[in-house]
Formats: sequence, C-alpha cells, structure tokens
Amino acid sequence: MANQPDASLMNRIVSLSKRRGFVFPASEIYGGLNGFWDFGPLGVQLKNNLRDAWWRSMVECPPMGPDGEPLSIVGIDTALIQHPRTWEASGHVGGFADLMVDCKETKLRYRADHVACIEVFYEKAGQKKSLGLLSALEGDEAEAAITKKAKKLIQKAGGGELVPFDMTTATPLTSLPNEAQTSVIGPDADKPGTLTEPRAFNLMFQSYVGVFQNDDSRVYLRPETAQGIFLQYKNVLDTSRVKPPFGVAQVGKSFRNEVTPRNFIFRTREFEQMEMEFFVPPEDGMKWYEFWVAERMRWWQEQGVSGNNLYRHEIAEADRSFYSAATSDIEYRYPFTAPGFGELEGVAYRTDYDLTQHQKFSKVKMEYIDQENKTRYIPHVIEPASGLTRGVLVLLCEAYQYDESRPSPEWLKIKPSLAPIKAGIFPLVNKDGMPEIAEKLFLDLRQKLICQFDAKQSIGKRYARMDEAGTPFCITIDGDTLKDQNVTVRNRDTAQQERVALDQVQSYLLTKLA
Amino acid sequence: MANQPDASLMNRIVSLSKRRGFVFPASEIYGGLNGFWDFGPLGVQLKNNLRDAWWRSMVECPPMGPDGEPLSIVGIDTALIQHPRTWEASGHVGGFADLMVDCKETKLRYRADHVACIEVFYEKAGQKKSLGLLSALEGDEAEAAITKKAKKLIQKAGGGELVPFDMTTATPLTSLPNEAQTSVIGPDADKPGTLTEPRAFNLMFQSYVGVFQNDDSRVYLRPETAQGIFLQYKNVLDTSRVKPPFGVAQVGKSFRNEVTPRNFIFRTREFEQMEMEFFVPPEDGMKWYEFWVAERMRWWQEQGVSGNNLYRHEIAEADRSFYSAATSDIEYRYPFTAPGFGELEGVAYRTDYDLTQHQKFSKVKMEYIDQENKTRYIPHVIEPASGLTRGVLVLLCEAYQYDESRPSPEWLKIKPSLAPIKAGIFPLVNKDGMPEIAEKLFLDLRQKLICQFDAKQSIGKRYARMDEAGTPFCITIDGDTLKDQNVTVRNRDTAQQERVALDQVQSYLLTKLA
Repeated sequence: MANQPDASLMNRIVSLSKRRGFVFPASEIYGGLNGFWDFGPLGVQLKNNLRDAWWRSMVECPPMGPDGEPLSIVGIDTALIQHPRTWEASGHVGGFADLMVDCKETKLRYRADHVACIEVFYEKAGQKKSLGLLSALEGDEAEAAITKKAKKLIQKAGGGELVPFDMTTATPLTSLPNEAQTSVIGPDADKPGTLTEPRAFNLMFQSYVGVFQNDDSRVYLRPETAQGIFLQYKNVLDTSRVKPPFGVAQVGKSFRNEVTPRNFIFRTREFEQMEMEFFVPPEDGMKWYEFWVAERMRWWQEQGVSGNNLYRHEIAEADRSFYSAATSDIEYRYPFTAPGFGELEGVAYRTDYDLTQHQKFSKVKMEYIDQENKTRYIPHVIEPASGLTRGVLVLLCEAYQYDESRPSPEWLKIKPSLAPIKAGIFPLVNKDGMPEIAEKLFLDLRQKLICQFDAKQSIGKRYARMDEAGTPFCITIDGDTLKDQNVTVRNRDTAQQERVALDQVQSYLLTKLA
Repeated sequence: MANQPDASLMNRIVSLSKRRGFVFPASEIYGGLNGFWDFGPLGVQLKNNLRDAWWRSMVECPPMGPDGEPLSIVGIDTALIQHPRTWEASGHVGGFADLMVDCKETKLRYRADHVACIEVFYEKAGQKKSLGLLSALEGDEAEAAITKKAKKLIQKAGGGELVPFDMTTATPLTSLPNEAQTSVIGPDADKPGTLTEPRAFNLMFQSYVGVFQNDDSRVYLRPETAQGIFLQYKNVLDTSRVKPPFGVAQVGKSFRNEVTPRNFIFRTREFEQMEMEFFVPPEDGMKWYEFWVAERMRWWQEQGVSGNNLYRHEIAEADRSFYSAATSDIEYRYPFTAPGFGELEGVAYRTDYDLTQHQKFSKVKMEYIDQENKTRYIPHVIEPASGLTRGVLVLLCEAYQYDESRPSPEWLKIKPSLAPIKAGIFPLVNKDGMPEIAEKLFLDLRQKLICQFDAKQSIGKRYARMDEAGTPFCITIDGDTLKDQNVTVRNRDTAQQERVALDQVQSYLLTKLA
C-alpha cells in the first residue's frame, strides 16, 4: 500500500483495476447492476491464484497441528441452491436480516447501522446554535458531505460560522434513542424527519424451482457456503475415513441482497467465499479456536499482506452470535477504513449449534461415535470464513504503489507466486532474429508459467505495462543475446537488471517464484 | 468403461460415486432437491483437475493455430447475475423455453419432447387389438414401464398376449399430430387423454434484487456463462492488447430450471460450464469453426476419453439456432444412451449474432477497427461450450472398470494427471519404524502431489480403496525398506509392483504423472 493513504487512493485503485482488466463493473454496457462486478483477464488470474493458494494450504497440504501431526482436511463443493429447510435450521430464514431505513424525501434506502449521525453547530454573533442531527453514510466522505450540508443550512439560516465537528464521535442511527431517530436529517435529504423507522430486511435472494412461484417452490441462493458443509458432514464422515479433529473446506459463490452495496468489491451482492469447518471434540474447542486464529493471521501475511495492516478483532460476547463461544475478525486496513480496519475473515467458534440444528430439523443423527474412547458426541466447530472477493481487494490495496520515478508511477507489488502474469517476454526490437528467440522462449516458458509476449512500443512502455499488471519479471532478448545467449531479466521490485543464460531462464524463474 | 454396458451400469456408477464421496445428492438429509447435486472430497478434486486442465489448455497455454502461431486467449469471470436486458438481447427472455405437459390425472409434469409414445397391441383369440398410445419418459426403463402398463391394461380388457413392440420406433409426444396427442396415456396415468397441450416454460431461474419483488427488480440466474463474455468483449478488447482472432474463456455455474432433471449429473438444474468465445474476422469463420471442432475432439481424448465413445454430431441446418452458420455437438456414449450418444460439448459458429444484439440493445458499438487493413467489422464468434459437470460424469463413466480378480472388483481408470489422489502411502504394518518412514515420505510428497496416508487394515484392502478412488500409484513401506531404503510402488492399471529407491519416489511419480 502507498505510504500515505488518502481519500483518493481507493479511486486510483478502482481506476487501475478497470483500466488494466482486473475488475470491471458487471453489465457495464447496460448501465451496470449495483453490487455486481466481473473479473477481467488479470483479475481472474489473481483470484484463481489466491483461491488455489488457500485450497493448497487447506486441502492439499494442510498445516501441522499443535501436536506436530498434519491436520486432516478434505474438500467439498456443494450446490448454491439447497433444500429450503436448510435455511430454517440455520436461522437464516428467521434472522438473517439487516435493519434498513427509507428516506421519504429522496426515496433512497440505507442500511440503518451505516447511517452516521452527528449534531452540528454554528456560531452567529457570538451565539452557538444547533443545525440539528445531520447524517451521512459512514466512510471516507462522510465528513465532507456533512460539511457541505451544514454550510447550506447555515446559509439558509442567514449565515454564520460552522463549528468544527469530529466524525469519530458520530453515532450510528440504530444507536440513537427513538425520539432522536425521528429528527435526523437523512444523508441525501434537506429536511429533518424524513427517515422511516428501521425495519428488518432478509438478505437472502429468493428464487423458485419448478413452474409455479409460491411458498412451496421457494428456494434461496446461499448466503454462505458453510451450511452446505454441515448438510454433508455425515456423508463425509461415512465415506472419507476422517475422524475429529478434521476439516471440510469449500470455495464458492454466495449471495446477499445487500441494502447498500459499496466500496468497490468490498461489499457486493454476489461474492466468493473460502470457508472451512473444523470438527473437533467439544472439550478441545477453545484450543482449536486459538490455533485457527493464529494460523489464519499467519496465512494472510504469507500472501504478502503486511502484519501492520492486519488486526485481530476479538468480538465481545454481546456482539457475537448467541451460539458462538468466541469469534475473532481478521481485519485489514482498507483505504476506505484507514486508519481503522474492516473485515477480511472471521474465525468463529460455532460450538455444536449448526449440527444440532440440522439434527433437530432433519431428524438425522449428527453424533460422532468414538469407538476408541467409547464416547459419542456432536462435534464442536471452528470456522475460518474468508472472503475470496475481499481477499483480491486486499491484495490489490496492499500491492498498490506510487513512485513518480518509475516507467509507470502506478505499479503493483503482488507476491510473485500470486501475480497474474509471471514473466513478460520482449524482443528488444522486432527484427534481427530477436522475435524468433523471444517467441521460442515464450513457448517453452508457458508450459510451466503464465507468460506474456510483448513486442510493441519501447522497452520502457513494456516495463510500465508489466509493472501495472504486477508482473514480477521481464525478460528482454537484445542484440547481445544473439552473440552470448544471455538475456536481461528485470526485477519488478528493485528495477534491477541482471544477465541470465537463455537456457537457465526457466530454472531461474521457478526458483524465484517458489 | 466396462466392456458390456448394461442397464445397471449407471446405477453402479452412481452408487460408487456416493459410497466413495465423488457425488452426493444435495440436501440429502432433507430428502434431497431434484436436480441438485454436491461434489464430495474425491469429486471436487476430480472436477477441479478437469477444470484446471481446460483452463490450462485454453488460457495459460492455448493451442497453436493453423498458421503455427500460438492462439491468443484470455480468461474472465463474470457475475452470475447480470442486468436483465442481457437476456432480452440474447433472446433468452423470449425464447429459452421447453415445451412441457402436465398430467391431469397424476399432477406430474413432463418435458414434452422426452415423452416417448408408441401404440401397443395385444392378441386375443387370434385377433390383434390396440391398447392405445402408451407413453413413458424416454430412456433405459421406458420399455419396462410400457410393458408393465400394457399387461395391466390387457388384464383389465379380459386377458390376452402382448404383441412385442420396439421402443426405437417410438415417437416423441411433440412429433405426434395434435389429435393423436390428446389420446396418449400419460407416463404415470391409467387413462388416455390426461396430458395437457404442450406449453412453453422459460428455463431461467428468476430472482429479485432489492426489497421489492416486481417487474423492475426481476433478475435471472444466468442460463449460460457465454453472455457474460459478450457483455465484457469491449472492455477486454480495450484493456488486454488482443485483436481478432482471439478468445475469452470462462468457467462457472449456470442454472436452468429443467422440467425433468435426470440421469444423475447429466441434466441438472445447477451445473458448471467451460465456455470460450473465439472472436474472428467474418471471412475466417468457417476455418476457425473446423479448427475448434477438431481441437475439442482431440482435447477430450487427451483427457483419457476413448475416441470410440466420442461422436461428432453435425447439426443439420433445420435443427440449428437460426443465427448459427454451423454447429457440431461432441457427444459421448453414456451408459444411459448406449449404443447411442448424448451431448458433452457444443461447438457453435454463432456468427455476429450476440455482439450485434448487444450493440442493438445497449447502443454500445461492438465493431473492431482494424487499423492495419483499414476495415471495421463486428467479429464472428466460434463457441466451444462444454459442460464441466457433464465432463466429470464422462470421466467417471469412462473410468469405471469391473474385474472380479482384483482387490476391489470395481475400480476407476482415471487418467493419472486427473486423478483426485495421486498416491496412497502405506506402512505395511503400523510398527517397526515403518509408520515413521511412511509419514516422512507423505509429508515430503504432499508438497507436490495430493497423497493419502493409510495405515488401516490389510494391504489388499488399502489397494482396493485406492483403486475405487482411481489413485494411480500405491507406495508401501515394508520391512525391507528399513534395510535397503527401497519402497514398493504398485501401478493401478497393471497391478504390477516395482521397487523404487525412497529418495527417487518423487521424481518417479512426477515423471509418470506428467
């Protein structure tokens, strides 16, 4: 991340993402669809690399446990649409709701807990007067929005001086006393009292299976991948030779009909998750909870995220789900939350809540019978639940660099193994045998690594393009290559160049990328 | 595939898939949900391997074109939910429908073109009499179902002999003249004339974005991944330095509200596709169409599918979409279609239909401006559209072997590079230092390959488990290993064993799996 986060940093990241094909607004030619985004050619590679790194570290090569033995974790891929009873058992039909308010003046809708309210004052002729309870959607621009509104109201009131206010002292609409809520000036409104009372809105997208749309045919797009794992817990236990402690991991799409999607790909209506449910004997729950919080903090740092930008937020009992014995959010310092943090992953100790609920609703026994110790129990569950879409956002934010002295001032310092393109391959000029050597190298290398051949424009411009794409190495075939069979390898991070023998390029890159 | 396909082969594959954790019915604990399936631990690895092989051969290392130059293909990942205008432009809102009929007697619903009708006769006292137009859902069990119904009707009519009939001469309900349709005895009905007239049923799942469910908020779950590519064609062209001929590839979920999902994971309501749109100058369309049909036939064989079980079905003009200049289905001889074939992939020459439609509906210019040749045109498109879910089914059917002489009579001959587990690692007995060596080997190998450690039960039982999972190699650490540092490697396909030096096992496996 750049050293000086500022209000426009996020705009620059969004703009680079669009310009270079990381992330496009979905359905842009039809004016877009709020809360939906597409991943372009570079974005899908970055996302796949992060997905594969997670899958490798969870399923293919899971970490060593506290006793020095490798953990046992298997993968799964369950359908997005499941039997609707699933979501009654999980509590999502009854409880998965946000409070929202509508503005009667502007017809706009807000998530109530995102409306930040603050009483603002002005001075006129030595007297301090209230402008009322102003509000804005919390975030970077809240202060500017309220200042603008305040100045307008002061002018209307016949002039005066705005008294400086501090947005960190603002109160969410939902935390205000009822009578205060009714006097708030909505974020886009001009008069007080235009916001409706907050009301619950279920976040699950609904659809219907079959020809008729009615209560019997209603299904839901899953709001989390986790429940698919709980539904198949018994089948996995019966077919995969696992026993507690063991995990089941899944990567896939989830959907939430967010009232106010925002902050680029941070809060979207369609997104991808990487979730793992770790089933353990009840008495070991807290031990495994601590293990997974530490392991997941470590893992994100291994992906190139600075420890300074990560924060373990231990959720207080009053703020946790009622069934959770402990929950930590792993938070990241996003440009739009800085200097504060926003969620990236949650590690929740869910106890036996989900399995017990599904046992109750399905009448299928969820007990594990421990033959060795002659006991039976419903396992407790530790869930590290991470956002893949959000993970890509973190990688982009973390990688974004700005340096006027470079071929492209904007460049991405992505961990080499996660970079969408591993090497750019350039003939210095498009003649004198150089393109032939370059193309042969390209065809060899692409068997092992994602490469891009580029023969257009100056070397500086080609470096610039690769820097913006986060490509860690650029290989140039020049006039000397014809004589000495060496090429120039340029390192993205140091901008240093070194000569490497043509037939050693592949092993050179594989070593650097390991 | 077993040498002798029979009616129960499919049942055995479904049963093995469930028993070993390849494929489970979705929401099984709630009685399942018709048309939805989950992939278990082995299934998700097999599916991921097939997905990655496709992505590699399309995006990371695309084939060489007819001129000897490597093709230019980039990846993308677009949202499942797009702006609803997308599906008006693509024709899916107006035209993506199946004909269905309802049975007034049984309240069951059928896809009209899947109801196979045949007039059945019986003989009584030397006289041949009609039992009427009987029907069944076409497929393996249609003959048995009609025979059963016919015998019941004969009995009701006072006895007689059923005249043998030939289901290959049956007619789909939709091909019968209208007056004949009204006299059909429905597949599960007892009396004639209970089927309604066929009526169109749009196959897109609907949902709603935002709080209100109305015409303005209605969206669709994509019925194909292809349209997401067309929506972003312009952004890809502008950001990725590609020019025709070039391709854009995508893997992802699609949804179709099938009237009659069936045949295991062949026709499901939620499924995964691997689609690539290849944009070419209009005059080169037919050349590239032929290229891609041949390439995709070759690719499936490279994945271990026998050429004998693949069939190129050139779709006649009358049966093609009106905008398609040519279409070939790549079909596979599934157990439930044998000796016939069923669809696996379609390669369609879609002309400029999709881009032209989106240009018309969005008013965004879709032309490519060819600076070199001073021309401009809307590219023509060749689309190889493959089912990933169906691809897994083909791999399972193709791999299924039955041999009474083996440790497990049922075993899966999956191409080694696609196998969910590459090697099983066994200490011969769980003592005398063998488990320690085996675990060390396991921890080394899993850095590069998906392995499974198994120390339970006899070696024969462990071989059997690995054979059923399609694991190509089993490595046993025995008493001799302690002395000579060699292990026994057993080859799944030949059941032959050879001794390999412990420190050579990794390179041995990597060579065999390449």
